[in-house]
Amino acid sequence: MAYFENVNEIKYEGPTSSNPFAFKYYNPDEVVGGKRMEEIFRFSVAYWHTFTMDGSDPFGHGNMIRPWDQYTGMDLAKARVEAAFEFFEKLNVPYFCFHDVDIAPEGSNLRETYKNLDEIVAMIKEYMKTSKTKLLWNTANLFSHPRFVHGAATAVNADVFAYAAAKVKKGLEIAKELGAENYVFWGGREGYETLLNTDMKLELDNLGRFLHLAVDYAKEIGFSGQFLIEPKPKEPTKHQYDFDVATALAFLQNYGLKDYFKFNIEANHATLAGHTFEHELRVARIHGMLGSVDANQGDPLLGWDTDEFPTDLYSTTLAMYEILQNGGLGKGGLNFDAKVRRGSFEPEDLFYAHIAGMDSFAIGLKVAQRLIDDKVLESFIEERYSSYHHGIGKDIVEGKTDFHKLEEYALQLGDIQNSSGRTERLKSTINQYLLSVLSE
Amino acid sequence: MAYFENVNEIKYEGPTSSNPFAFKYYNPDEVVGGKRMEEIFRFSVAYWHTFTMDGSDPFGHGNMIRPWDQYTGMDLAKARVEAAFEFFEKLNVPYFCFHDVDIAPEGSNLRETYKNLDEIVAMIKEYMKTSKTKLLWNTANLFSHPRFVHGAATAVNADVFAYAAAKVKKGLEIAKELGAENYVFWGGREGYETLLNTDMKLELDNLGRFLHLAVDYAKEIGFSGQFLIEPKPKEPTKHQYDFDVATALAFLQNYGLKDYFKFNIEANHATLAGHTFEHELRVARIHGMLGSVDANQGDPLLGWDTDEFPTDLYSTTLAMYEILQNGGLGKGGLNFDAKVRRGSFEPEDLFYAHIAGMDSFAIGLKVAQRLIDDKVLESFIEERYSSYHHGIGKDIVEGKTDFHKLEEYALQLGDIQNSSGRTERLKSTINQYLLSVLSE
Amino acid sequence: MAYFENVNEIKYEGPTSSNPFAFKYYNPDEVVGGKRMEEIFRFSVAYWHTFTMDGSDPFGHGNMIRPWDQYTGMDLAKARVEAAFEFFEKLNVPYFCFHDVDIAPEGSNLRETYKNLDEIVAMIKEYMKTSKTKLLWNTANLFSHPRFVHGAATAVNADVFAYAAAKVKKGLEIAKELGAENYVFWGGREGYETLLNTDMKLELDNLGRFLHLAVDYAKEIGFSGQFLIEPKPKEPTKHQYDFDVATALAFLQNYGLKDYFKFNIEANHATLAGHTFEHELRVARIHGMLGSVDANQGDPLLGWDTDEFPTDLYSTTLAMYEILQNGGLGKGGLNFDAKVRRGSFEPEDLFYAHIAGMDSFAIGLKVAQRLIDDKVLESFIEERYSSYHHGIGKDIVEGKTDFHKLEEYALQLGDIQNSSGRTERLKSTINQYLLSVLSE
Amino acid sequence: MAYFENVNEIKYEGPTSSNPFAFKYYNPDEVVGGKRMEEIFRFSVAYWHTFTMDGSDPFGHGNMIRPWDQYTGMDLAKARVEAAFEFFEKLNVPYFCFHDVDIAPEGSNLRETYKNLDEIVAMIKEYMKTSKTKLLWNTANLFSHPRFVHGAATAVNADVFAYAAAKVKKGLEIAKELGAENYVFWGGREGYETLLNTDMKLELDNLGRFLHLAVDYAKEIGFSGQFLIEPKPKEPTKHQYDFDVATALAFLQNYGLKDYFKFNIEANHATLAGHTFEHELRVARIHGMLGSVDANQGDPLLGWDTDEFPTDLYSTTLAMYEILQNGGLGKGGLNFDAKVRRGSFEPEDLFYAHIAGMDSFAIGLKVAQRLIDDKVLESFIEERYSSYHHGIGKDIVEGKTDFHKLEEYALQLGDIQNSSGRTERLKSTINQYLLSVLSE
Repeated sequence: MAYFENVNEIKYEGPTSSNPFAFKYYNPDEVVGGKRMEEIFRFSVAYWHTFTMDGSDPFGHGNMIRPWDQYTGMDLAKARVEAAFEFFEKLNVPYFCFHDVDIAPEGSNLRETYKNLDEIVAMIKEYMKTSKTKLLWNTANLFSHPRFVHGAATAVNADVFAYAAAKVKKGLEIAKELGAENYVFWGGREGYETLLNTDMKLELDNLGRFLHLAVDYAKEIGFSGQFLIEPKPKEPTKHQYDFDVATALAFLQNYGLKDYFKFNIEANHATLAGHTFEHELRVARIHGMLGSVDANQGDPLLGWDTDEFPTDLYSTTLAMYEILQNGGLGKGGLNFDAKVRRGSFEPEDLFYAHIAGMDSFAIGLKVAQRLIDDKVLESFIEERYSSYHHGIGKDIVEGKTDFHKLEEYALQLGDIQNSSGRTERLKSTINQYLLSVLSE
Repeated sequence: MAYFENVNEIKYEGPTSSNPFAFKYYNPDEVVGGKRMEEIFRFSVAYWHTFTMDGSDPFGHGNMIRPWDQYTGMDLAKARVEAAFEFFEKLNVPYFCFHDVDIAPEGSNLRETYKNLDEIVAMIKEYMKTSKTKLLWNTANLFSHPRFVHGAATAVNADVFAYAAAKVKKGLEIAKELGAENYVFWGGREGYETLLNTDMKLELDNLGRFLHLAVDYAKEIGFSGQFLIEPKPKEPTKHQYDFDVATALAFLQNYGLKDYFKFNIEANHATLAGHTFEHELRVARIHGMLGSVDANQGDPLLGWDTDEFPTDLYSTTLAMYEILQNGGLGKGGLNFDAKVRRGSFEPEDLFYAHIAGMDSFAIGLKVAQRLIDDKVLESFIEERYSSYHHGIGKDIVEGKTDFHKLEEYALQLGDIQNSSGRTERLKSTINQYLLSVLSE
Repeated sequence: MAYFENVNEIKYEGPTSSNPFAFKYYNPDEVVGGKRMEEIFRFSVAYWHTFTMDGSDPFGHGNMIRPWDQYTGMDLAKARVEAAFEFFEKLNVPYFCFHDVDIAPEGSNLRETYKNLDEIVAMIKEYMKTSKTKLLWNTANLFSHPRFVHGAATAVNADVFAYAAAKVKKGLEIAKELGAENYVFWGGREGYETLLNTDMKLELDNLGRFLHLAVDYAKEIGFSGQFLIEPKPKEPTKHQYDFDVATALAFLQNYGLKDYFKFNIEANHATLAGHTFEHELRVARIHGMLGSVDANQGDPLLGWDTDEFPTDLYSTTLAMYEILQNGGLGKGGLNFDAKVRRGSFEPEDLFYAHIAGMDSFAIGLKVAQRLIDDKVLESFIEERYSSYHHGIGKDIVEGKTDFHKLEEYALQLGDIQNSSGRTERLKSTINQYLLSVLSE
Repeated sequence: MAYFENVNEIKYEGPTSSNPFAFKYYNPDEVVGGKRMEEIFRFSVAYWHTFTMDGSDPFGHGNMIRPWDQYTGMDLAKARVEAAFEFFEKLNVPYFCFHDVDIAPEGSNLRETYKNLDEIVAMIKEYMKTSKTKLLWNTANLFSHPRFVHGAATAVNADVFAYAAAKVKKGLEIAKELGAENYVFWGGREGYETLLNTDMKLELDNLGRFLHLAVDYAKEIGFSGQFLIEPKPKEPTKHQYDFDVATALAFLQNYGLKDYFKFNIEANHATLAGHTFEHELRVARIHGMLGSVDANQGDPLLGWDTDEFPTDLYSTTLAMYEILQNGGLGKGGLNFDAKVRRGSFEPEDLFYAHIAGMDSFAIGLKVAQRLIDDKVLESFIEERYSSYHHGIGKDIVEGKTDFHKLEEYALQLGDIQNSSGRTERLKSTINQYLLSVLSE
């Protein structure tokens, strides 16, 4: 029953190990900042990229070599579950995530789809009894089937809205059944191809209604997981309504939904929206809305979602910096919403890629924790904004000024003295911390 | 005293005119959809691009040939006022806009700056008595001077906050003095260069405080113009807080400012944020926040703000479509925040460029009005979303469903029938309307 | 046997026609600049987008409604041929294009693939006997099958190079058999995913060798069609060697291949490379390398190849301007390498989209021809560069100067007088020509 | 006469130093791969960014605090020379680079400009007698003055061509006088704003003529430095003819200039062209055209030339990898064509920024050298392309095949076996090498 026969359990072997099937920096039991690494990261495997994705792209057929591809239909679905738990165990990963269609094939009608899902969910539940791996989140795929061509909750066709509702209802039931810690909404088709044929107002109103119904149903069945919105600006749709954190925040406020949601932030979605990963994390954090993370990276020279495994240590460091400043991710985790490149089509690449990602975040964590421990940025920032701690600055922050007082103050000022922002020196310091991370 | 001696008043001469100094499509007195063109557009000349800008770019010195450049200091400021009103009159334009520093040089201290401003404002007021041209909006430049290097309302230094407040206070007084119909906030330095040295939360809080103080002061002095936020995602700053309409909307909601502001939407700022011009107009419109427009266009292959004069008829058509659907711009107008290319350095180019922009919007207006009159898009959209007018769709819209009812409905559905969105046919229809606009 | 029962032959009905199944501007028999429109454009239907493509995208399944999808295997291939010629006839289009895999399924080995191809090629040849529609070009798909994952002519594996050679050999034989006027090379996998694992020099050398072998074989079998390189900068591969016209030109020069190739220029590939469509056409034209055109358009706000049907009249006008200045396309033509949007999934959309494209180019042609007839741009340019017709300018162009003479000349110059480039006025003139195109 | 009083000579103090005015990784005398670091890098300071640039941007005035700004005119020019050599000495940097206008102000006519240049060049020459710092390259600024608004060698006006020739003539004389090792051509205005008014063919022909005249004059005066073309795709001009290495290579080939030029490759120009820095280096390297490097970095989320100091260690590593594989840079060097951020306006930031850049390249060098020593990438690539070392692959490379033989070979092939490209594992290995660089 082994699908990955030539791979044994991945263990921590330290930075100098030459074993490609070993963690070199990720040590689940190592304590950083008072917590075990495993508890800090709450790493998760994305079912779709690892067990369902076949390597096809807009110009090429599926090419991934996957031992379970000898099966079809429900047999394939079951083989994937077996492979998944073997993979989870060998990778020693505490969480996984899935869309409904990743785990079970759609039937010829909704009832049959439910039946397929029930069978696989039961099988997963059975596996989970003896596995350490838990469900970080699940979701309903409301974008791949032709019925969702014009949207799901924002569909032009009310039948589709209803169908989408049924899928999310089932998704919430599965979430409860499997103890999911979160439930995610990603609106890949919630947007428009062209404004020429679009009633944006109605579509947004319907999206608001849909999410309220979901909130109500979760309460009804006692699902206590966190609801997450995953912003993405475009692709597959020309414009998606959950463009970025700020846009989705405006939406949640408009429709009275802010208290029920947090954000699932994906690195590559951030860059497609013109932001850094850490920007999106920061915006979510300061609004108390940072829920979970889809850990991957994009190619800044390519205009589509490449979903690469994260290996850029600047990105993992600055992401972990935000996460640590957030006091961790709570119910969330770091889900590898990442796929091996099409050229990395051997089963072993799935391990290499996850190890690369986990090691990269482990390094990022250590660098970030040291930066925080040494108050490298905090001290600089504290000093930089210190004028708001006294005098006119304090009055401003405490709301004790008005334009009259401020003008009076400004009129007596001589030349204003500013200080350098020291960008180059700070970047150099980050490099110094990065390179010294191993020299404890 | 004529600065544009070889240009006479620009008149409407019709589409076949070969006179480059004539309007070919813009006829101020022509009635479209029940209103005179002049009243619909409320065209405005941007003082900075037309009378102050010298053609310099990051790699080149100023090269514009401007007859008033024989003067310096306050004499130059006065010459510009003379040239401006000559230009307004010859172009027959009903509005203009300016930043404080466009009209008067900064003095060696704030008090001297006030004095310079007072002198020029008085001169402008005198000119306005006999001119048809009114002030669409003014604003304070809080980004060019070195003191604003780290922001203004979001400065790291409280002295700068105070100085900025004084400038806006003066700006509001000038707005009242000259009867401005709006007052604009563009935060070119309100953002960050790097998160490494930035307290985003404090900066946003301070921005919220600043705008409340401005609202309070406007009430105090009885300035009844509309307050406008002008979003821009980046440039000069790496990230600007008013990234786009949705982002700024989230901000206004967070800080209880939504009721006091509308948006001034610039085409090129939209494209820098990854949106079409019409997208930003639509988002503002459906939230009741469309205030005014900075009419220009960008180059989709260049990554900076080119501020080109608008000549793309697709863009002007779709913009006018949104504006007409909004019931017009109210106190707002179409301000040409556009500069002649550096290679168009002769004074005549200022006329050619404004004529190009005004004619392009006149065409856009006519096409948009016909599209609306013929219900070309409305009919298609009406039919497309018709399922929400009855049955389950009506229940959804009226809030009479829940996930149970929707699931029950979905379970009895057969294959869902969707209809084509007809993007290609609609685009073809737009072309047909565009080309037939002259054949009334 | 009719696949498009509810569509009759598309005829020219003029600009005011409200029949969506009519040409409004494209009139094949209308003479423009001395040639029939049909002969100028040499429009071609892309077999893949029209008969093979199913609407799938990276996040969605196939959703196109295609009457021939009731069949499978070779029956499907035959049904597509029948549908294709019905479509060609109803659209009255003189050319089509295909990849080998578009017309016939790959067999379980190369010999079987050949057999399938032979059968369908014979069927197509039979159809062509009674059809006006000829083969503009064909090509071999060297990118979709997993074997090409690391390239074809630039594969890391010599077996793949050999296999690719066999496919091109067969492709050239088919080209000869069906009288193709061109043969195209598009290297979708000829590039790299990362430089870390890439021997760029060897790969380019092999590409040079491959193309020489193709040239040799074409000579051997007496195929007299034009060889075309189709540049594209990226997608599916991170970097593709035929990045743009200039890059491919450098390559052809390096490997002594320049005399045997011209370029097939695609609008959307131009924009992905950071160029306008007309730029790529111009670069090819002035080097005598403009061979054929893949007519489509991209979305400037999206970073992938959207392959939209061309409806932007600025783009069609400027493209036709280059083509007319080139004296036409010779053996080339305008191939609609364009796909209906995923939301336009009904069979009728295929007609609407092609009509949109053909009408848009017809308008572009007329505007471009008038611009040329009136010497609008030529006169301006003639005057603009007139200093090179006499004096020092003439000496420069005729090679009669050196740095001594030029310095001597420069030293006696006073302030140099430049003239405005008049960008805004020229753009306005283009609009004027566009809008007046119907008023003959 | 000290302009940087509070900074002493920068020395190497090792990675753990907390002195911001110390090199932590750059140790000029350390031997890496058999050569002293100083000889490998040949670091150069860019006169313009360090001594002339004032911090202005399109929305802001100059704000840099520079002690020499108390002077004006020729006094300022002389103060800058003094400051420069003080800076060079304190930074211990072996090279510098300049444009003519950086070192001396333009006079009211060309003869006066020459005079100013002569005076400053003599002063620099005097300083160089006792300084270790040599001239890496100089160039003529053919883009800032209004006369170059429409280009220099590609100007629409022959007078401008002549003027540009005179400036380059003088530049070559200065290069010879000061012993410059290279002479650079960057064509910031050699391109077009719009094709509507452009004769691209004539402009390119003139550029070819101009460069031939420069080659001839260099021979005449016995200047033996290397000529370098510096590609950039856009900015300030919409399209620049030297778009990237491949484009400029095509140009040089077309005009018979390839033997006289190499490339000066700038990181940020690469990214603006849609390439990685290492891509451009690789393309130049495999064509034997890698001459020199402008070391900086861009912001992948911004669309303009930010010219940041290089701190990204991935970029410096991969750049040094190419440079080492090239056998070094020969007469070239690493010139910091980089400017401190506008927010880093204090004189100290100039040191911090150069230290950051030099340290970052020192790290990159060490990582690259280790990768090469351990044949990390070479071994993988050797194996990956091994099929070209025997059998059909060897025949292909040696030109002993044709399409017949290749087809025959392909027909007997079973399923082709490809191997994973291992992108994720290779990236992980790069991280491992990066982090272990200090643990020698």
